[in-house]
Amino acid sequence: MDLVFVTTPAHTVMGILQDCVACAIPNAVIISSGFSEAGGDGARMERELSEFAIRNGINVVGPNTMGICNLHCSLYGTGAHPRPPRGGISIVAQSGNVGNQIMLWAEIQKIGISKFVGSGNEAVLKVEDYLEYLNEDCDTSVVLLYLEGVDDGRKFFEVAKTIAMRKPVIALKAGRTEGGSRAAASHTGAMAGSFAIFASVLRQSGIVIAHNPTELLELAAAFDSFPLPGGNRVGILTLGGGWGVITADECEERGLAIPPLPDDIREKLDKKLPPFWSRANPVDLVGQPDINLYHEAIELMVASDAFDAVIVLGLIGSPRFGIRPIQAAHRLGFFPDDEMKSMEGNVDNVESGMLCSILDLMERYRKPIYPVTLAAFPNDEIIFSKPGNRYKAIVYKTPEEAVLCLAKQHQYATFMRRRWKREIA
Amino acid sequence: MDLVFVTTPAHTVMGILQDCVACAIPNAVIISSGFSEAGGDGARMERELSEFAIRNGINVVGPNTMGICNLHCSLYGTGAHPRPPRGGISIVAQSGNVGNQIMLWAEIQKIGISKFVGSGNEAVLKVEDYLEYLNEDCDTSVVLLYLEGVDDGRKFFEVAKTIAMRKPVIALKAGRTEGGSRAAASHTGAMAGSFAIFASVLRQSGIVIAHNPTELLELAAAFDSFPLPGGNRVGILTLGGGWGVITADECEERGLAIPPLPDDIREKLDKKLPPFWSRANPVDLVGQPDINLYHEAIELMVASDAFDAVIVLGLIGSPRFGIRPIQAAHRLGFFPDDEMKSMEGNVDNVESGMLCSILDLMERYRKPIYPVTLAAFPNDEIIFSKPGNRYKAIVYKTPEEAVLCLAKQHQYATFMRRRWKREIA
Repeated sequence: MDLVFVTTPAHTVMGILQDCVACAIPNAVIISSGFSEAGGDGARMERELSEFAIRNGINVVGPNTMGICNLHCSLYGTGAHPRPPRGGISIVAQSGNVGNQIMLWAEIQKIGISKFVGSGNEAVLKVEDYLEYLNEDCDTSVVLLYLEGVDDGRKFFEVAKTIAMRKPVIALKAGRTEGGSRAAASHTGAMAGSFAIFASVLRQSGIVIAHNPTELLELAAAFDSFPLPGGNRVGILTLGGGWGVITADECEERGLAIPPLPDDIREKLDKKLPPFWSRANPVDLVGQPDINLYHEAIELMVASDAFDAVIVLGLIGSPRFGIRPIQAAHRLGFFPDDEMKSMEGNVDNVESGMLCSILDLMERYRKPIYPVTLAAFPNDEIIFSKPGNRYKAIVYKTPEEAVLCLAKQHQYATFMRRRWKREIA
Repeated sequence: MDLVFVTTPAHTVMGILQDCVACAIPNAVIISSGFSEAGGDGARMERELSEFAIRNGINVVGPNTMGICNLHCSLYGTGAHPRPPRGGISIVAQSGNVGNQIMLWAEIQKIGISKFVGSGNEAVLKVEDYLEYLNEDCDTSVVLLYLEGVDDGRKFFEVAKTIAMRKPVIALKAGRTEGGSRAAASHTGAMAGSFAIFASVLRQSGIVIAHNPTELLELAAAFDSFPLPGGNRVGILTLGGGWGVITADECEERGLAIPPLPDDIREKLDKKLPPFWSRANPVDLVGQPDINLYHEAIELMVASDAFDAVIVLGLIGSPRFGIRPIQAAHRLGFFPDDEMKSMEGNVDNVESGMLCSILDLMERYRKPIYPVTLAAFPNDEIIFSKPGNRYKAIVYKTPEEAVLCLAKQHQYATFMRRRWKREIA
């Protein structure tokens, strides 16, 4: 299907659309601005453009859009140049700028993106149309949505309900406050409406609500990576007690439960841990530097019927941080160079071995395991995958990020289970 | 003053303290564990140790502590090896693990740290004692506090009130929920008590409350860098409309106000911006790539009596992201190598020029200006300073971080203004 990108001044656009009809080109992305967002003459031109396009069956993205991308066919049609890896997340944004910056964040964090559209003034195609399309799109596993306002609330609700049954949709609604609504009105002319009403429409559709663009991408990546939990009961494994406390707080504040540790796990760990270990959930491994113990403890937790999900704190990352005193001793001459080198190499192996085993356990038990490294360095990889594994592991830099993702995955799973039951009944 | 570090098994510690008395060494950091946290015999040994130390006037940190650091005299006495730069933030942590990991985060983000103490079991010196000391310490401008529980609430309240008048104290109270309290009890044996009561004690003391360790460090760095705002009225400058909407929402949700744009600023910008600019606060510079305009607009906002603080979105970072299409054109042969090189060099100059001017404007107007780069790369510097300038500029990666820091600085400033007035009256 032919596609035209239009970037010429507003008054030239109508002529170009007429040429499209003459050449039987049914698709146009109109980047040009100076339409309804500029008021006056621009609004009139946009009305004419919209009527003409609808009458002649031209699919128009925009006008006043940042453009579109389809990474699966290497189409990059935006003015800005973010280059994230190819993946399953598609982005629909009522602010091209916000959408593009999210694409740049995805590039930096190596999160895979499928398609991008900045919906611009939505003169012809609207956010509902893009959702309808993505519902059917096999290259899209998760939809990321930045919204300022919706014209046809009823249609949006219907489409949202349909797509949410099929794949997770994560949405950020901007213009929640008075100040934000005023800013949205002067930005896209969107009537932001009452956020309370809109939020309840989103919730009733099964759409996952994010609070800011960072969360939006974080949640999309989590839904694209981890299996959904079967309930809200969280097992926490930690190397240091404080992080267990912090994570338990975060979990309960987000509606997750920290059930007691089952006796059989306690008995098994009693044999492996010093007498002053926590003997409770969170399981505090009290800093034991024993990799086999880590593997065993993770499997004990994930295999247990007592837990629907497991959060693993500090096991990833700690070997790399923990080797520093040995490196210092090496500098003082306590270890020969080759011994030091082999220990450093071993640290990387230990970490990737632990991540592989997390992937395998998720595959086997179909339960999410969220690893949190408390010693992340700027250029660290954050997403791990393995050929043949359905799921990926995201290594979080803080417990609150892991807990947020787990809590939202749990909410979505609960909603979907209830809806499927209703559909079947 | 002599200082002893003790790392030998618990039952040997008392003998070492007796040696301290014999040698007139008044200070001991007892890293050794196996005391009250282990129960039974350990609890008895800790009581004896505590009585002996108090009777003989030995200052004891711990036992069961991660240790202490004083970066201003290059003393690094912890088992873990984080190495942040020297600076003004001192850390008191009831979890050495959490405190150390915050030190590592400070190292990664190049946030300056002054002193660190993991308070351990607090057999002799308690969190209140460390606060009393830091109140007088000239090398400490901001205190970062990780708390699980406090024994002497009354004394804590008195000390907290005193120090908060002199320098900002940022605290995270863990064990807020039932699950968290249970975890805290098995971790440090702390009686977490009611969080509602504790939070109100913190608030009445003028202590700034953080919700998690990430916020804790973020807020400490902000208080150590920016001047305090004189009120809650925020001017927002943005390159893209969507980010203005998002930031306005965040501000109002955190109790900050987005007042209308004063007429004189509107008139001045009318002459410089295309007709479709926002003409309101947030000021949307509609993507104009004009550096002089950026400088002028920032100064117009910060100089205005209408605003107590300014948030600048996307101006830092955008030149570096914006040059990508030109680089692509260069790869296609549209620009010779030397021209491309000079443009790339210019981008760095433009960014540092903008940050310098933000530092100068903060100095001149004593108002905070929070820059947010929406295109941050992993190894980017985040804190900028200049010799002779009192304030530093932190470049935030997301609007919500900037808004959180501004909102908490505003709360603290308001509380302090009221208290000073009462003291004077």
